[in-house]
Amino acid sequence: MEESTTQRRTLYQGRVVGLELHDVRLPDGRTALREIVRHAPAVGVVAELADGRFALVRQYRKPVERTVLEIVAGIREPGETAVEAARRELLEETGYSAVTLTRLGTCYPSPGYVDEQIDLFHAQLAREPVATSLDEDENVCMECYTSTEISAMIDRGEIQDAKTLLAWFWWQRERSV
Amino acid sequence: MEESTTQRRTLYQGRVVGLELHDVRLPDGRTALREIVRHAPAVGVVAELADGRFALVRQYRKPVERTVLEIVAGIREPGETAVEAARRELLEETGYSAVTLTRLGTCYPSPGYVDEQIDLFHAQLAREPVATSLDEDENVCMECYTSTEISAMIDRGEIQDAKTLLAWFWWQRERSV
Repeated sequence: MEESTTQRRTLYQGRVVGLELHDVRLPDGRTALREIVRHAPAVGVVAELADGRFALVRQYRKPVERTVLEIVAGIREPGETAVEAARRELLEETGYSAVTLTRLGTCYPSPGYVDEQIDLFHAQLAREPVATSLDEDENVCMECYTSTEISAMIDRGEIQDAKTLLAWFWWQRERSV
Repeated sequence: MEESTTQRRTLYQGRVVGLELHDVRLPDGRTALREIVRHAPAVGVVAELADGRFALVRQYRKPVERTVLEIVAGIREPGETAVEAARRELLEETGYSAVTLTRLGTCYPSPGYVDEQIDLFHAQLAREPVATSLDEDENVCMECYTSTEISAMIDRGEIQDAKTLLAWFWWQRERSV
């Protein structure tokens, strides 16, 4: 089923995304155009506090013109492993280090048009925070909820970020095994 | 936390995605650049056959350079509701109509850089197919699996599409209530 690229044009290369157009040859010999968004691999972490609550982050997301409640997440920096990125994002966004970090799985958010891959984790956070001053540049606001509260928010449609919903369900599934 | 656009440039408007650059003013008065991918709203459907198996579709996804196993899904056409799009995609990709269609929820695949929203459904398919010739233009291949087989594929990391994993877990959660 493979599609081979016969010509590639890079239309944009920015800070977060890039855009390429590929002319491809299909298995049956026909040709097609593929619009491909490039995005660095990322991580997402279900961050569980020592008191059993979970640390989520709320931030304004310009593409959807609203604040979105999400798990701790971010782009992997060059040369960084997924585990290293998860530990760094936890510190930056919550101020806590991880006592344990468990891999839940990996996903492609939208493989039809973007190459982004997100590795998902669960972290048990330390009892005391490491940092007291969080990364202020991100306009990120930490909010802590119990498992029951998160389930209720999902039922009411108040959590809509796909990686957050997926990581949460994945963690619930792992726990119940 | 709102960010107001002070200047907008459309760099590309294609068949599947568009790309805009927004200069935004942050709540604290600073300015920032936001790279925004535009994508039409979409639907995804956990399609259950009369024999209890589930119809998934495999297709080559150029951005990730591999075939990906996904639930039935597609972009909503102009003026089409999510329910209408779900019924149309079921017919196009499986050849079956839906006897029941249950809404699971909605999600943003990557609200940090793209506005796409996906409405997720479960469909109970009719006993007999409506169409015998599927949409051949999509290079889509239908594959049917039992619930146990899908769970095992998830455990082995063989299902990596986020909407597919999310819709599957959501459906399992709804069933268990």
